Amino acid sequence: MSDKEQIKFMNMAIEKASENVKTGKGGPFGAVIVKNGKVIAATGNTVFETYDPTAHAEVAAIRLACNELKSVTLEGCEIYASCEPCPMCLSAIYWAKIDKLYYAATKEDASAAGFDDTFLYKEIALNPGKRSLNTQHFMHQEALVSFEEWKRKLNIDDI
Amino acid sequence: MSDKEQIKFMNMAIEKASENVKTGKGGPFGAVIVKNGKVIAATGNTVFETYDPTAHAEVAAIRLACNELKSVTLEGCEIYASCEPCPMCLSAIYWAKIDKLYYAATKEDASAAGFDDTFLYKEIALNPGKRSLNTQHFMHQEALVSFEEWKRKLNIDDI
Repeated sequence: MSDKEQIKFMNMAIEKASENVKTGKGGPFGAVIVKNGKVIAATGNTVFETYDPTAHAEVAAIRLACNELKSVTLEGCEIYASCEPCPMCLSAIYWAKIDKLYYAATKEDASAAGFDDTFLYKEIALNPGKRSLNTQHFMHQEALVSFEEWKRKLNIDDI
Repeated sequence: MSDKEQIKFMNMAIEKASENVKTGKGGPFGAVIVKNGKVIAATGNTVFETYDPTAHAEVAAIRLACNELKSVTLEGCEIYASCEPCPMCLSAIYWAKIDKLYYAATKEDASAAGFDDTFLYKEIALNPGKRSLNTQHFMHQEALVSFEEWKRKLNIDDI
Protein backbone atom coordinates (compact mmCIF):
# COMPACT_ATOMS: atom_id res chain seq x y z
CA MET A 1 0.00 0.00 0.00
CA SER A 2 1.34 3.45 -0.86
CA ASP A 3 2.23 6.01 1.79
CA LYS A 4 -0.51 8.23 0.38
CA GLU A 5 -3.15 5.57 1.02
CA GLN A 6 -1.86 4.96 4.54
CA ILE A 7 -2.13 8.69 5.28
CA LYS A 8 -5.66 8.75 3.89
CA PHE A 9 -6.80 5.88 6.13
CA MET A 10 -5.16 7.33 9.22
CA ASN A 11 -6.74 10.72 8.54
CA MET A 12 -10.08 8.94 8.39
CA ALA A 13 -9.43 7.39 11.82
CA ILE A 14 -8.38 10.78 13.26
CA GLU A 15 -11.50 12.38 11.80
CA LYS A 16 -13.66 9.78 13.59
CA ALA A 17 -11.87 10.69 16.83
CA SER A 18 -12.56 14.40 16.33
CA GLU A 19 -16.19 13.76 15.39
CA ASN A 20 -16.66 12.07 18.75
CA VAL A 21 -15.65 15.21 20.63
CA LYS A 22 -18.50 17.02 18.87
CA THR A 23 -21.16 14.30 19.07
CA GLY A 24 -20.34 12.89 22.53
CA LYS A 25 -20.82 9.31 21.32
CA GLY A 26 -17.57 8.26 22.98
CA GLY A 27 -13.99 9.21 23.77
CA PRO A 28 -11.72 10.89 21.19
CA PHE A 29 -10.61 7.75 19.41
CA GLY A 30 -11.20 6.40 15.92
CA ALA A 31 -10.29 3.26 13.97
CA VAL A 32 -10.47 2.11 10.37
CA ILE A 33 -10.11 -1.46 9.07
CA VAL A 34 -8.92 -1.94 5.52
CA LYS A 35 -8.75 -5.04 3.33
CA ASN A 36 -7.12 -4.97 -0.11
CA GLY A 37 -7.22 -1.17 -0.12
CA LYS A 38 -10.95 -1.07 0.68
CA VAL A 39 -12.40 0.28 3.95
CA ILE A 40 -14.37 -2.50 5.69
CA ALA A 41 -15.16 -0.56 8.88
CA ALA A 42 -14.62 3.00 10.14
CA THR A 43 -15.89 4.14 13.51
CA GLY A 44 -15.23 6.19 16.58
CA ASN A 45 -15.39 4.89 20.13
CA THR A 46 -19.12 4.34 20.88
CA VAL A 47 -18.96 3.78 24.64
CA PHE A 48 -21.49 6.45 25.62
CA GLU A 49 -23.79 5.89 22.68
CA THR A 50 -24.16 2.15 23.31
CA TYR A 51 -23.69 1.90 27.12
CA ASP A 52 -20.76 -0.38 26.40
CA PRO A 53 -17.39 0.24 28.11
CA THR A 54 -15.79 -2.25 25.69
CA ALA A 55 -16.87 -0.31 22.60
CA HIS A 56 -13.51 1.38 22.10
CA ALA A 57 -12.86 2.39 18.48
CA GLU A 58 -10.72 -0.67 17.63
CA VAL A 59 -13.15 -3.15 19.23
CA ALA A 60 -16.14 -1.44 17.61
CA ALA A 61 -14.36 -1.53 14.22
CA ILE A 62 -13.46 -5.23 14.62
CA ARG A 63 -17.07 -6.05 15.42
CA LEU A 64 -18.31 -4.12 12.38
CA ALA A 65 -15.72 -5.68 10.05
CA CYS A 66 -16.36 -9.25 11.26
CA ASN A 67 -20.07 -8.75 10.87
CA GLU A 68 -19.53 -7.32 7.38
CA LEU A 69 -17.34 -10.29 6.35
CA LYS A 70 -19.32 -12.86 8.39
CA SER A 71 -16.05 -14.12 9.85
CA VAL A 72 -14.62 -14.33 13.37
CA THR A 73 -11.15 -13.41 12.10
CA LEU A 74 -9.75 -10.66 9.90
CA GLU A 75 -6.75 -12.17 8.15
CA GLY A 76 -5.56 -9.94 5.32
CA CYS A 77 -6.83 -6.81 7.10
CA GLU A 78 -4.98 -3.81 8.50
CA ILE A 79 -6.21 -1.53 11.28
CA TYR A 80 -5.54 2.20 11.56
CA ALA A 81 -6.01 3.50 15.10
CA SER A 82 -5.91 7.22 15.89
CA CYS A 83 -4.23 6.28 19.17
CA GLU A 84 -2.07 3.39 20.37
CA PRO A 85 -4.52 0.67 21.43
CA CYS A 86 -5.15 0.00 25.13
CA PRO A 87 -4.44 -3.61 26.24
CA MET A 88 -8.09 -4.56 25.63
CA CYS A 89 -7.99 -3.31 22.04
CA LEU A 90 -4.51 -4.66 21.36
CA SER A 91 -5.63 -8.10 22.53
CA ALA A 92 -8.74 -7.85 20.39
CA ILE A 93 -6.49 -7.14 17.38
CA TYR A 94 -4.57 -10.35 18.14
CA TRP A 95 -7.74 -12.42 18.63
CA ALA A 96 -9.05 -11.08 15.30
CA LYS A 97 -5.76 -12.06 13.60
CA ILE A 98 -5.38 -8.66 11.93
CA ASP A 99 -2.18 -8.50 9.83
CA LYS A 100 -0.92 -5.03 10.69
CA LEU A 101 -1.53 -2.21 13.17
CA TYR A 102 -0.90 1.46 12.38
CA TYR A 103 -1.27 3.95 15.23
CA ALA A 104 -0.74 7.70 15.59
CA ALA A 105 -1.09 9.21 19.10
CA THR A 106 0.48 7.28 21.98
CA LYS A 107 -0.84 5.75 25.20
CA GLU A 108 0.94 8.56 27.05
CA ASP A 109 -1.11 11.11 25.09
CA ALA A 110 -4.28 9.20 26.02
CA SER A 111 -3.29 9.22 29.70
CA ALA A 112 -2.61 12.98 29.54
CA ALA A 113 -6.19 13.38 28.30
CA GLY A 114 -7.55 11.52 31.33
CA PHE A 115 -7.63 7.88 30.14
CA ASP A 116 -6.13 4.97 32.10
CA ASP A 117 -4.08 3.42 29.29
CA THR A 118 -0.58 3.53 30.79
CA PHE A 119 -1.91 2.44 34.20
CA LEU A 120 -3.68 -0.49 32.56
CA TYR A 121 -0.53 -1.71 30.76
CA LYS A 122 1.23 -1.77 34.14
CA GLU A 123 -1.63 -3.63 35.87
CA ILE A 124 -1.91 -6.33 33.18
CA ALA A 125 1.78 -7.15 33.58
CA LEU A 126 1.39 -7.89 37.31
CA ASN A 127 0.45 -11.21 38.87
CA PRO A 128 -3.21 -11.30 39.97
CA GLY A 129 -2.38 -10.87 43.66
CA LYS A 130 -0.33 -7.71 42.98
CA ARG A 131 -2.99 -5.88 40.97
CA SER A 132 -5.24 -3.11 42.31
CA LEU A 133 -8.24 -5.22 41.20
CA ASN A 134 -9.51 -7.35 44.08
CA THR A 135 -9.10 -10.91 42.71
CA GLN A 136 -9.92 -14.33 44.15
CA HIS A 137 -8.94 -17.67 42.61
CA PHE A 138 -11.04 -20.68 43.66
CA MET A 139 -12.84 -23.79 42.33
CA HIS A 140 -9.94 -24.53 39.98
CA GLN A 141 -10.64 -28.27 39.67
CA GLU A 142 -14.37 -27.84 39.10
CA ALA A 143 -13.72 -25.54 36.13
CA LEU A 144 -11.49 -27.99 34.28
CA VAL A 145 -14.47 -30.10 33.21
CA SER A 146 -15.48 -27.76 30.37
CA PHE A 147 -11.92 -27.74 29.00
CA GLU A 148 -11.85 -31.55 29.08
CA GLU A 149 -15.16 -31.65 27.23
CA TRP A 150 -13.81 -29.12 24.70
CA LYS A 151 -10.62 -31.09 24.10
CA ARG A 152 -12.59 -34.30 23.64
CA LYS A 153 -14.89 -32.56 21.15
CA LEU A 154 -11.96 -31.18 19.15
CA ASN A 155 -9.73 -34.21 19.65
CA ILE A 156 -7.07 -32.05 21.23
CA ASP A 157 -4.52 -34.18 23.03
CA ASP A 158 -3.04 -32.90 26.24
CA ILE A 159 -0.60 -30.29 24.92
CA MET B 1 -21.31 -12.57 50.44
CA SER B 2 -21.26 -16.08 51.87
CA ASP B 3 -18.96 -18.80 50.51
CA LYS B 4 -22.07 -20.73 49.50
CA GLU B 5 -23.26 -17.90 47.28
CA GLN B 6 -19.83 -17.51 45.70
CA ILE B 7 -19.82 -21.23 44.87
CA LYS B 8 -23.31 -20.93 43.39
CA PHE B 9 -22.32 -18.06 41.09
CA MET B 10 -19.09 -19.76 39.98
CA ASN B 11 -20.98 -22.96 39.25
CA MET B 12 -23.30 -20.91 37.08
CA ALA B 13 -20.30 -19.54 35.13
CA ILE B 14 -18.84 -23.05 34.74
CA GLU B 15 -22.21 -24.32 33.53
CA LYS B 16 -22.27 -21.63 30.84
CA ALA B 17 -18.80 -22.80 29.74
CA SER B 18 -19.95 -26.41 29.48
CA GLU B 19 -23.13 -25.43 27.65
CA ASN B 20 -20.95 -23.83 24.97
CA VAL B 21 -19.20 -27.10 24.23
CA LYS B 22 -22.60 -28.58 23.45
CA THR B 23 -24.11 -25.66 21.53
CA GLY B 24 -21.01 -24.47 19.68
CA LYS B 25 -21.90 -20.81 20.34
CA GLY B 26 -18.34 -20.09 21.43
CA GLY B 27 -15.32 -21.34 23.35
CA PRO B 28 -15.67 -23.16 26.72
CA PHE B 29 -15.86 -20.05 28.88
CA GLY B 30 -18.62 -18.53 31.01
CA ALA B 31 -19.08 -15.42 33.13
CA VAL B 32 -21.63 -14.14 35.62
CA ILE B 33 -21.98 -10.57 36.91
CA VAL B 34 -23.59 -10.07 40.31
CA LYS B 35 -24.75 -6.92 42.10
CA ASN B 36 -25.99 -7.02 45.69
CA GLY B 37 -26.38 -10.78 45.47
CA LYS B 38 -28.47 -10.59 42.30
CA VAL B 39 -27.34 -11.94 38.92
CA ILE B 40 -27.30 -9.07 36.38
CA ALA B 41 -25.77 -11.05 33.48
CA ALA B 42 -24.80 -14.68 32.84
CA THR B 43 -23.43 -15.81 29.52
CA GLY B 44 -20.99 -18.00 27.71
CA ASN B 45 -18.51 -16.82 25.11
CA THR B 46 -20.58 -15.97 22.01
CA VAL B 47 -17.77 -15.57 19.44
CA PHE B 48 -19.10 -18.06 16.88
CA GLU B 49 -22.76 -17.21 17.39
CA THR B 50 -22.26 -13.48 16.81
CA TYR B 51 -19.25 -13.41 14.43
CA ASP B 52 -17.48 -11.35 17.07
CA PRO B 53 -13.96 -12.29 18.21
CA THR B 54 -14.33 -9.84 21.12
CA ALA B 55 -17.42 -11.60 22.51
CA HIS B 56 -15.51 -13.56 25.16
CA ALA B 57 -17.67 -14.49 28.14
CA GLU B 58 -16.49 -11.61 30.35
CA VAL B 59 -16.87 -8.98 27.61
CA ALA B 60 -20.28 -10.38 26.62
CA ALA B 61 -21.38 -10.32 30.27
CA ILE B 62 -20.17 -6.73 30.73
CA ARG B 63 -22.13 -5.66 27.65
CA LEU B 64 -25.28 -7.36 28.92
CA ALA B 65 -24.92 -5.94 32.43
CA CYS B 66 -24.22 -2.37 31.25
CA ASN B 67 -27.17 -2.53 28.91
CA GLU B 68 -29.34 -3.87 31.73
CA LEU B 69 -28.27 -1.08 34.10
CA LYS B 70 -28.04 1.59 31.36
CA SER B 71 -24.59 2.51 32.63
CA VAL B 72 -21.09 2.47 31.13
CA THR B 73 -19.61 1.32 34.45
CA LEU B 74 -20.39 -1.48 36.90
CA GLU B 75 -19.35 -0.16 40.30
CA GLY B 76 -20.67 -2.40 43.08
CA CYS B 77 -20.60 -5.46 40.82
CA GLU B 78 -18.56 -8.65 41.00
CA ILE B 79 -17.67 -10.90 38.09
CA TYR B 80 -17.32 -14.69 38.22
CA ALA B 81 -15.25 -16.06 35.31
CA SER B 82 -14.97 -19.80 34.69
CA CYS B 83 -11.38 -19.13 33.56
CA GLU B 84 -8.76 -16.48 34.32
CA PRO B 85 -9.54 -13.59 31.95
CA CYS B 86 -7.32 -12.98 28.90
CA PRO B 87 -5.76 -9.49 28.73
CA MET B 88 -8.70 -8.22 26.65
CA CYS B 89 -11.24 -9.35 29.23
CA LEU B 90 -9.12 -8.27 32.20
CA SER B 91 -8.81 -4.79 30.70
CA ALA B 92 -12.55 -4.72 30.04
CA ILE B 93 -13.12 -5.50 33.74
CA TYR B 94 -10.96 -2.49 34.65
CA TRP B 95 -12.69 -0.19 32.14
CA ALA B 96 -16.07 -1.31 33.55
CA LYS B 97 -14.85 -0.53 37.10
CA ILE B 98 -16.03 -3.89 38.44
CA ASP B 99 -15.26 -4.25 42.18
CA LYS B 100 -14.05 -7.84 42.33
CA LEU B 101 -12.98 -10.68 40.04
CA TYR B 102 -13.39 -14.36 40.90
CA TYR B 103 -11.85 -16.91 38.53
CA ALA B 104 -11.54 -20.71 38.52
CA ALA B 105 -9.45 -22.29 35.72
CA THR B 106 -6.15 -20.60 34.85
CA LYS B 107 -4.71 -19.07 31.67
CA GLU B 108 -2.38 -22.08 31.50
CA ASP B 109 -5.43 -24.39 31.38
CA ALA B 110 -6.86 -22.25 28.55
CA SER B 111 -3.58 -22.48 26.62
CA ALA B 112 -3.53 -26.27 27.09
CA ALA B 113 -6.97 -26.33 25.45
CA GLY B 114 -5.67 -24.45 22.41
CA PHE B 115 -6.25 -20.79 23.33
CA ASP B 116 -3.56 -18.08 23.10
CA ASP B 117 -3.95 -16.61 26.57
CA THR B 118 -0.43 -17.07 27.96
CA PHE B 119 1.13 -15.99 24.64
CA LEU B 120 -1.03 -12.86 24.67
CA TYR B 121 0.03 -11.86 28.20
CA LYS B 122 3.65 -12.04 27.02
CA GLU B 123 3.00 -10.02 23.86
CA ILE B 124 1.12 -7.22 25.64
CA ALA B 125 4.07 -6.71 27.99
CA LEU B 126 6.50 -6.07 25.09
CA ASN B 127 7.20 -2.75 23.43
CA PRO B 128 5.39 -2.40 20.06
CA GLY B 129 8.53 -3.03 18.01
CA LYS B 130 9.22 -6.30 19.84
CA ARG B 131 5.79 -7.85 19.33
CA SER B 132 4.92 -10.46 16.72
CA LEU B 133 2.18 -8.08 15.48
CA ASN B 134 3.49 -5.95 12.60
CA THR B 135 3.12 -2.40 13.97
CA GLN B 136 3.82 1.03 12.50
CA HIS B 137 3.72 4.34 14.40
CA PHE B 138 3.22 7.47 12.29
CA MET B 139 1.26 10.76 12.07
CA HIS B 140 1.73 11.34 15.80
CA GLN B 141 1.34 15.12 15.67
CA GLU B 142 -1.75 15.02 13.45
CA ALA B 143 -3.56 12.78 15.93
CA LEU B 144 -3.07 15.10 18.90
CA VAL B 145 -5.76 17.48 17.65
CA SER B 146 -8.66 15.34 18.89
CA PHE B 147 -7.11 15.08 22.36
CA GLU B 148 -6.67 18.86 22.48
CA GLU B 149 -10.32 19.29 21.49
CA TRP B 150 -11.35 16.75 24.15
CA LYS B 151 -9.34 18.47 26.86
CA ARG B 152 -10.80 21.87 25.93
CA LYS B 153 -14.31 20.42 26.05
CA LEU B 154 -13.76 18.87 29.48
CA ASN B 155 -11.54 21.68 30.81
CA ILE B 156 -8.75 19.22 31.47
CA ASP B 157 -5.49 21.07 32.07
CA ASP B 158 -2.32 19.53 30.77
CA ILE B 159 -1.79 16.79 33.32
